[in-house]
Amino acid sequence: MAAGSESRLQLIHRHIRAFPDFPNTGILFRDICPILKDPAALTAVIDLFEEHVRKNYKQVDLIVGLDARGFLFGPLLAQRLCVGFVLVRKKGKLPGATVSVAYNLEYGKAEAEIQEDAVAPGQKVLIIDDLLATGGTLYAACELMKKQQAEVLGCMVVIELKELNGFERLKPHSVFSLVKY
Amino acid sequence: MAAGSESRLQLIHRHIRAFPDFPNTGILFRDICPILKDPAALTAVIDLFEEHVRKNYKQVDLIVGLDARGFLFGPLLAQRLCVGFVLVRKKGKLPGATVSVAYNLEYGKAEAEIQEDAVAPGQKVLIIDDLLATGGTLYAACELMKKQQAEVLGCMVVIELKELNGFERLKPHSVFSLVKY
Repeated sequence: MAAGSESRLQLIHRHIRAFPDFPNTGILFRDICPILKDPAALTAVIDLFEEHVRKNYKQVDLIVGLDARGFLFGPLLAQRLCVGFVLVRKKGKLPGATVSVAYNLEYGKAEAEIQEDAVAPGQKVLIIDDLLATGGTLYAACELMKKQQAEVLGCMVVIELKELNGFERLKPHSVFSLVKY
Repeated sequence: MAAGSESRLQLIHRHIRAFPDFPNTGILFRDICPILKDPAALTAVIDLFEEHVRKNYKQVDLIVGLDARGFLFGPLLAQRLCVGFVLVRKKGKLPGATVSVAYNLEYGKAEAEIQEDAVAPGQKVLIIDDLLATGGTLYAACELMKKQQAEVLGCMVVIELKELNGFERLKPHSVFSLVKY
């Protein structure tokens, strides 16, 4: 790297803030809002995602994004790849016939949902979110895809919190992350 | 328009579905998921938004989008315009110092929130969401911008439900909508 220049990963890194004890005591919250506020940083995220996809997958049919911060990145990547974007939402938000999967939160349970016709059997999908922590929601999204007989090519996140081992929970699916803590 | 061709608005129209009695009896829910699933329809939405902005505003500093479906369109438009994107979220979702505004829902109240440093005084912003119904959330977003002394240039939505008069509630701010029912 030439002196004075900054790599795309450094640019992204510089636009992630840490807030201690949010939303609960003991949790260090990684805030991606500054990435969204800087068009160059957001472009860098989508560039790196796109390069990863083009290098590793011959065919992608759909990008699947998680409510709500996966919605910030998913449609951008889908447009770059000229494919559609599918919403995974919290239960009760999507109209029409839906399929849902329950998953564990730190306290209690939640349900993730897609429209029944969101994916067709055999479609190859990539699942995207802002951050991988314990992997609960991404795991539920993978399960939803399996239920509909779609093929999960992998998961993609901006940030991965390594010590929470979400990576293990998502096996055999791969996780591609830009920034690891 | 040449025979056999389809206008961009027709393309968008064709990708909006109506679901009666969702989420409550008597409500006809307009579903934009098919727009997201079709890359050409999504491109058409962003093209029309971008053309409107370039034609009507000399300077835009930020696109402000509403949780959660405003997140689907806002970053795409922000990237086209090479400006940042700011998240308006439901209360309790954003870390750090925040500013919030309460607004009325059909039943009860809700609060919309931004990070205190999300906008600077004097910045010119456009607020984006998927749909204008009674205008409660968009109104709250306008109030948040005023609180931070930002200048609201206008609101933009894919769908406007005319009979609910959200347009009136948002005055003096203008509303640009692609599809009206």
